[in-house]
Amino acid sequence: MPHIPLPEQLPGITGLLEYRLDTAQPIRELTQILLRGESTLSQGERELIAALVSSRNCTNFCEAAHTKAADLLLGDDETARAVKQDIETAPVSEKMKALLQISALAQTSGKAVTTEAVARAREAGATDREIHDTVLITALFSLYNKYVDGLATVAPADPAYYEMLGERITGRGYVRPPGGYPTQKH
Amino acid sequence: MPHIPLPEQLPGITGLLEYRLDTAQPIRELTQILLRGESTLSQGERELIAALVSSRNCTNFCEAAHTKAADLLLGDDETARAVKQDIETAPVSEKMKALLQISALAQTSGKAVTTEAVARAREAGATDREIHDTVLITALFSLYNKYVDGLATVAPADPAYYEMLGERITGRGYVRPPGGYPTQKH
Repeated sequence: MPHIPLPEQLPGITGLLEYRLDTAQPIRELTQILLRGESTLSQGERELIAALVSSRNCTNFCEAAHTKAADLLLGDDETARAVKQDIETAPVSEKMKALLQISALAQTSGKAVTTEAVARAREAGATDREIHDTVLITALFSLYNKYVDGLATVAPADPAYYEMLGERITGRGYVRPPGGYPTQKH
Repeated sequence: MPHIPLPEQLPGITGLLEYRLDTAQPIRELTQILLRGESTLSQGERELIAALVSSRNCTNFCEAAHTKAADLLLGDDETARAVKQDIETAPVSEKMKALLQISALAQTSGKAVTTEAVARAREAGATDREIHDTVLITALFSLYNKYVDGLATVAPADPAYYEMLGERITGRGYVRPPGGYPTQKH
């Protein structure tokens, strides 16, 4: 049960984003810019970072949602799982492996990101902006994961929920639907 | 040296917020709403949470800046130091002790926040909104700390820098000054 009263039909982050609309708006906007805005990283690659960080933080709701989003954007349901299991053997580019390793280090602590990890990414062709965005996406999902777990929100067990949510965040992105959410159960 | 090229005269978070203005804007806005907007927690109490989290994450730049902001808002330079050393013996209300303990738990992991810690806060008079905001401020400073340390930004050693920064974030808040920052060294 969540630590504060949240609408039962809005699990995970969704109820929190309706709880305080004024703080939700910039959180949604930052996510939309970082994960859906112009970038030399594909939307699928950026969702891989979100899924990896949420997996390492053991935040089931976010992990399931962003794994599904990555699956839909990459067109397969293997890559995200492989990344979460072992970055080095996952079917992603050398550049993405290096960026995902930076994300994995930053997930443990910002100070854990080494100059060697950054040099590896640069040698694999990563730009300053890609390195920056990898760290900021990692930091943003650290916020999300702490917010979702720190208030003990509920993660639905039904995979169909995350299919619906994955479709929503790949189709419409992270903006709030006009008029908010339907109050009936999903 | 930072992992990406940042203006030398803008240390810590300040250079990052100029590096990508589009992502900086919602980060600034969220901080302004959470730390300066209407709340039953005083601005000084909210800065104590920011200082505590940054201290526990060992992010020197953020710790020094928000400790100074708390000092200025609370009118003393003892409370923030005492909170960082030992929440239970710090000169703050029982409600603030309970909220700071929730923050300290959430700093380690969202899942570490117990129903007992939340019950203690409620018994001491904390509202749902105050519990929510405590967790979200903790999550936001987890983002900041990871961002600042993950890109290896520089924390000035000179206390005068944080006095200037503390005056700025208590006086003007977290909004960007019109026209951006002066390019000369602070």
